[in-house]
Amino acid sequence: MLSLLDLLRRIDAGHISAQSALSHCLDLIEAREYAVRAFTHMDTHAAAAAQGPLRGIAIGVKDIIDVAGMPTGMGSPIYRDNVARADASITAMLRRAGGTPLAKTTTTAFAFLDPTETLNPHNPAHTPGGSSAGSAAAVGAGMLPLAIGTQTGGSVIRPASYCGAAAIKPSFRLLPTVGVKCYSWALDTLGLFAASVPDLAYALAALGERPDLRLPDDRAPDSAAGLRIGLLMQDFAGPPEDDSAAALDAAVKAIEADGAQVTPVSAPESLAAAYNVHGIIQDYESVRALAWEYDAHRDQLPPILGETLDAAQHVPAGAYDEARRTAHQARREAKSFMRGYDALLTFASPGSAPEGLASTGESRFNRLWTLMGVPAVNVPGFRNAAGLPVGVQIVTGFGRDDKALQVAACIENALQKRL
Amino acid sequence: MLSLLDLLRRIDAGHISAQSALSHCLDLIEAREYAVRAFTHMDTHAAAAAQGPLRGIAIGVKDIIDVAGMPTGMGSPIYRDNVARADASITAMLRRAGGTPLAKTTTTAFAFLDPTETLNPHNPAHTPGGSSAGSAAAVGAGMLPLAIGTQTGGSVIRPASYCGAAAIKPSFRLLPTVGVKCYSWALDTLGLFAASVPDLAYALAALGERPDLRLPDDRAPDSAAGLRIGLLMQDFAGPPEDDSAAALDAAVKAIEADGAQVTPVSAPESLAAAYNVHGIIQDYESVRALAWEYDAHRDQLPPILGETLDAAQHVPAGAYDEARRTAHQARREAKSFMRGYDALLTFASPGSAPEGLASTGESRFNRLWTLMGVPAVNVPGFRNAAGLPVGVQIVTGFGRDDKALQVAACIENALQKRL
Repeated sequence: MLSLLDLLRRIDAGHISAQSALSHCLDLIEAREYAVRAFTHMDTHAAAAAQGPLRGIAIGVKDIIDVAGMPTGMGSPIYRDNVARADASITAMLRRAGGTPLAKTTTTAFAFLDPTETLNPHNPAHTPGGSSAGSAAAVGAGMLPLAIGTQTGGSVIRPASYCGAAAIKPSFRLLPTVGVKCYSWALDTLGLFAASVPDLAYALAALGERPDLRLPDDRAPDSAAGLRIGLLMQDFAGPPEDDSAAALDAAVKAIEADGAQVTPVSAPESLAAAYNVHGIIQDYESVRALAWEYDAHRDQLPPILGETLDAAQHVPAGAYDEARRTAHQARREAKSFMRGYDALLTFASPGSAPEGLASTGESRFNRLWTLMGVPAVNVPGFRNAAGLPVGVQIVTGFGRDDKALQVAACIENALQKRL
Repeated sequence: MLSLLDLLRRIDAGHISAQSALSHCLDLIEAREYAVRAFTHMDTHAAAAAQGPLRGIAIGVKDIIDVAGMPTGMGSPIYRDNVARADASITAMLRRAGGTPLAKTTTTAFAFLDPTETLNPHNPAHTPGGSSAGSAAAVGAGMLPLAIGTQTGGSVIRPASYCGAAAIKPSFRLLPTVGVKCYSWALDTLGLFAASVPDLAYALAALGERPDLRLPDDRAPDSAAGLRIGLLMQDFAGPPEDDSAAALDAAVKAIEADGAQVTPVSAPESLAAAYNVHGIIQDYESVRALAWEYDAHRDQLPPILGETLDAAQHVPAGAYDEARRTAHQARREAKSFMRGYDALLTFASPGSAPEGLASTGESRFNRLWTLMGVPAVNVPGFRNAAGLPVGVQIVTGFGRDDKALQVAACIENALQKRL
């Protein structure tokens, strides 16, 4: 993959210019895009900024996020030739940081479940996951050092796991979703994909204007000694497949060898209850968020989304209110539950990327954390016997994005040493 | 004013058609708009729906809310000729209910404080308030039976008080803000203006698909006996002017005469603390929500907004996080504090509409309730010696929109009997 921090170090050292860093990405894209199909639009004449923490960094932006002057296609013919007048907040923020929105990346229609044409960069017969398919695949294929996606169920962490990218879904609204097409306002969360956890931390600090999120010296801590990690199997979400079980096992062994203390934990009942109501909240809100698309263009919605919205029309307000109360209660209990650990370690996806392109895989190990609004990081590093990557997931309490990145960096580092 | 329920009764009885109800509004607009200047765009060929709870109801939509095919001007030259491709959620929902988005109503630029060209319908030398100036004035002038606005500080309740309209700012996100220009994602709340509280209750039930919000028989309860009302002066927000003090006094006397029990109450300290951090949250978020407008078009921002955003660029993330924690704590304490009362009664605005058009007035009696996310209703009825209206405000706990409407209807009814 293409490391953002490596690129910046080369620019700082004067080995390359910010502009040639962009050109380098365009060359990589020209070489690899035909085999991945990660992009819907490309600005081949993009100019690099002269300064800013992300100068020279080419960024892929999921195609439900507005970039002024570029089309926002939403993965749907309903938005054909829909050129954005303004930048989304995240786009303006990345420009402020000196970054360059070089390309729009594929999204499933309205960030739901109908697959894109993107292929997994590690095996084209497998899905890259969704809904942020293009962003995950572009980074996983080493075409871009940074890409932006969104997660409503598991649309950042799952494709990152499948494509072998590091990714963070930060605390709810740490990155604003203004100018991002809404599916569910209580759930939609922006996330970042990069080559490594230190890259993520650097980028999130820059985009969020939160310098404290950077890792000391922009690298993983030398030791994991003293870290208290809760190992959570998420039984309420069903069992993992062998690949994810093996990845979790490898991560535990690696981080224990580096000095961390890993303790199996059980989530309080209220978290399982919240897991079960995620769909009610998502359904109720999507009916309203996509009311115009449904009423005016039902015939142009793809099959999975169309049928899901058909069914969701009947979710009553009372069920939604009750689901929100359940989630609210779980957020409070999650807070005290997590207080005993620096982070929770769990599965990032049920397994490695499923074969076939008809499905984008399952979000069952991600949904709860989206609903809780807490930080989640996909830590890459493990691969199955066939060479397909599969990640593990680090979760912390709300607002502890710093801790999530630190622990994730430790595990990434520990895995690299042992694999 | 023009009562929505009256119009619907006449349509139901076959006295007028839904289409002629729309035409009636167009006639009223033609007669009065020159003196009020409430609209930015009008669909003079609008067709009424044949059915739905809001059939025949012409609705004004604040010009930061998308209506497909109509320009969304945001009160700013930056968005000249910006025709909306899709409906905002609230627009699609009102169409589902059979309502007709007849016109776009004036908004201060990006719903902040720089005045519009709209005049107070009760005295053109006075402000109609803001930011939902056109929506409040259109209803207050009797040109429309229903209009939609938004509130980030006091942009629904304040102009309603100044223009003599009934209005509700419902619980946070009861009405989705998808497709509404964002100023502050934690604060922006859609609200409704209508001729009376029963009209509001009917419209909110229809738009929110929450039939329980309708008042029994669509009218105020016969008696206020048994109602426990907390009388809150909001000392932390400074003193009221004479007009608002008189309006509150009249409301207390009227509702006590109808059998309610009114008790002076003091808010817990945490509410005053939350009042003081509203601005920090608003500032920090507006910097990001309007990042593109600021970076690309600073010279086209009006003076108050431009200078506010200049200063707001320096609010640090730590101050924002701390403000959110303060607000979170206050929401919890507000919940138990309010549990002892059916509703709180307080000022809707510092006084009646100030003379002059250079200011839209102050939101100091509204801000806290926006930040708390709780329902707030402006109850019209009182007028000062010069004939200018000034409302009183009813506030309840989160999700108790039903109770807010019931109590507000009682007070409206009690005031009507006595004034």
